[in-house]
Amino acid sequence: MEQTIVQQALEQISNYLEDNRWDQAVSLLESLRPPDQADVFEVLPEEQQQALLPRLELEDSADILEEMDDEEAAHLAARLQAEALAAILDEMEADEAADLLGDLPSDLVKGILARMKDAELVRPLLIHPDESAGGLMTSEFPALREKQTVAEALACLRAWAPEEDPGSQRSYYIYVVDREQRLRGVVSLLRLLATDPWKRVKDVMDRDIMSVQAGADQEECAQLLARYDLLSLPVVNGEHRLIGIITADDLVDVLQNEATEDIQRLGGAEPLSRPYLSTGIWQMTRKRIGWLLLLFITATLTGEVMRLFEHELAAVVALTYFIPLLIGTGGNAGSQTTNLVIRALAVGDVRLRDFLRVFWHEIRTGLFLGLCMGGVAYLRASTWVQDPWIALTVALSIVVIVLWSTSVGSLLPMLAERLHIDPTVVSGPAMSTLVDAAGLFIYLSIAKVVLGV
Amino acid sequence: MEQTIVQQALEQISNYLEDNRWDQAVSLLESLRPPDQADVFEVLPEEQQQALLPRLELEDSADILEEMDDEEAAHLAARLQAEALAAILDEMEADEAADLLGDLPSDLVKGILARMKDAELVRPLLIHPDESAGGLMTSEFPALREKQTVAEALACLRAWAPEEDPGSQRSYYIYVVDREQRLRGVVSLLRLLATDPWKRVKDVMDRDIMSVQAGADQEECAQLLARYDLLSLPVVNGEHRLIGIITADDLVDVLQNEATEDIQRLGGAEPLSRPYLSTGIWQMTRKRIGWLLLLFITATLTGEVMRLFEHELAAVVALTYFIPLLIGTGGNAGSQTTNLVIRALAVGDVRLRDFLRVFWHEIRTGLFLGLCMGGVAYLRASTWVQDPWIALTVALSIVVIVLWSTSVGSLLPMLAERLHIDPTVVSGPAMSTLVDAAGLFIYLSIAKVVLGV
Repeated sequence: MEQTIVQQALEQISNYLEDNRWDQAVSLLESLRPPDQADVFEVLPEEQQQALLPRLELEDSADILEEMDDEEAAHLAARLQAEALAAILDEMEADEAADLLGDLPSDLVKGILARMKDAELVRPLLIHPDESAGGLMTSEFPALREKQTVAEALACLRAWAPEEDPGSQRSYYIYVVDREQRLRGVVSLLRLLATDPWKRVKDVMDRDIMSVQAGADQEECAQLLARYDLLSLPVVNGEHRLIGIITADDLVDVLQNEATEDIQRLGGAEPLSRPYLSTGIWQMTRKRIGWLLLLFITATLTGEVMRLFEHELAAVVALTYFIPLLIGTGGNAGSQTTNLVIRALAVGDVRLRDFLRVFWHEIRTGLFLGLCMGGVAYLRASTWVQDPWIALTVALSIVVIVLWSTSVGSLLPMLAERLHIDPTVVSGPAMSTLVDAAGLFIYLSIAKVVLGV
Repeated sequence: MEQTIVQQALEQISNYLEDNRWDQAVSLLESLRPPDQADVFEVLPEEQQQALLPRLELEDSADILEEMDDEEAAHLAARLQAEALAAILDEMEADEAADLLGDLPSDLVKGILARMKDAELVRPLLIHPDESAGGLMTSEFPALREKQTVAEALACLRAWAPEEDPGSQRSYYIYVVDREQRLRGVVSLLRLLATDPWKRVKDVMDRDIMSVQAGADQEECAQLLARYDLLSLPVVNGEHRLIGIITADDLVDVLQNEATEDIQRLGGAEPLSRPYLSTGIWQMTRKRIGWLLLLFITATLTGEVMRLFEHELAAVVALTYFIPLLIGTGGNAGSQTTNLVIRALAVGDVRLRDFLRVFWHEIRTGLFLGLCMGGVAYLRASTWVQDPWIALTVALSIVVIVLWSTSVGSLLPMLAERLHIDPTVVSGPAMSTLVDAAGLFIYLSIAKVVLGV
């Protein structure tokens, strides 16, 4: 649905721009919702982007820069006048403004901050890495005091309300701090509204509250949010002082992007930094060629194993017919395991210390799978080549290869996690090397013994 | 972190239960947060679960049943007394209560509904399938009228507030309806609070509002939420009457589960219905054996292709050394494409109507990748076997195979989507059949021509 809107708007706006009908282009663009605006805007030629942005309402410009891909937003922003950019940044959420400033050349940043009204809100956010809780949080939030009465608290919120961007959805859980700004509790706005105005905030607040440190990894925050069904997450510093709030929408984006990256890596490609169709052919090739080339090492090893058994293969040509089956089975059993384990690690179902349990789980599953597959393979092979010894060789090999690939498939991701390498990165190429070459070695060794060639 | 808490609590509670110290077990369990409670509770033996549940506060029992795996929750609930179960269901969110009732035998449901206080809230939800917007929404929400004054609206909300479960996080966007209950706008609680009490609601509400039909697929709702950074989504019926609200936490779970299922399917396993370590070995084997067996068909075909070229393979044994490389390259290039396309479809970056654009994108990328890989393969093969004609065969085959597998890899998921089959299901086995067997056929045909054997 939304794609149709984007497509139609894009054609219309391109037509307007061709005829230099700026006003129409601007008003059509402004009528869209921010993510749709950004989608249309991103595919316009650079000159048109630069000419269009200053004509938009500040708020729309801010929305577009927030929604755009980071790199492109920085590229465009660096080409704007410092004055104009500062005004746009003032309209952005503080965390997004900090992200954008963080991507600009540092000699520009100082001049822009000097021209910004909200500079003191944004400046402290600049020190946090993009992918940490501190990089995701906003420092614009209302906080209540424990000793305030409910009436005072509501007055505070009323006074704060105009600061609020009317377009932003926000969780109306209001955090409560003590005198030293330390996080003490949370209270819902609705509850405040329904409570006797003379009661103290601390008597209605909920003290059981989750928070994260500013340095916490964004994935960890996203997992907390998903697990505990939160709509926002308070961020504290080392002294447990409340320094910011992360809202669910930012963490939803984190969850989506992490899953996308994992799926792309598991397919054997570097994660794309932009949507599929917006990624050019050259970029696409660059993201994919690396792993395909790594395969040559694998394949060389596998080829070497075949050469090693040249004599056996020449003696019993029928052995070669089963090579795709055996390599394929090993590869599939292994990729089942790695995908299951990697996802379990990603959503927190499995931790590093579950190492042995996972291994034991896979060993037993592998044995079951291997025995089933081996049985079927025996029947299939014996009707195919009509040599019970070859059938036995194939069946035995299947059992050992499946056991091997499920073990390796469970150990590799855990090992990568332990070494702080993304498990999805190493699992592909390392797996295929270990599984293909070793599988073939297992098969041909068993053949040598069973067939006595 | 949370896993440690769960682990410790579990050991402690098991100890208490062994010594029949029920009170301690109950109070420790009640001190945990709901998802942690459910994690501990789920691994207890069934008799202990049945004995423990009636001793817990109703609210905790409700939380645990909400958080548990659907099937197990139904299994346990069916063993409770109708009276007790009705009381627990009354404490649950209406949408969760409806889900649970939907999983119970229909002869039980009537008796339980008759004993429930909130029966009239839950009953209309029973008609919606679990995986639709209607199945996810709650029908407990406050709605305002356009013509109310802000003062009246706040009074309404104050009256409604005690209904609200103090533990549930909720987006404080309040929806506004007309006399016929048709959705007209949305307003934030903070904005109401800060507005002149004599103004009308319709003058402060935002009319630009997204909604979904009750029958909308849950994935579609989750995508809207993620794209437009919403914290809740109103659900309307055919006459645009507001009938429920979906909150972000439910949709976050949908996003997480869909990504998990896709990753598991892409690895070649049926999605697990429970966390990795809680899935038994037998269940695990059942979820994985199917696709491994399907591979036999693939492998038979691939083997047949080898038999077809028996003569050529026997004449030039060196040809066999490159089989793993060629099959592997085809498989990897294909899985890169399917993973990229499947994820792009899942997050809405690509639609069915982009069919030709995707195909064209992959054809060109495939050509680039193929040429790079072919060049490297030529160098590698000519140093390895020292026969320029074999090297040429390998290089040419790589180009054609990569082109073939990127095309098939982009067409299959789109075709599956078109036929309303989950693209992740067909892409695995169908891909390997088409890519392995066809790849080998391409290679050996080229060999026949180039080498003239």
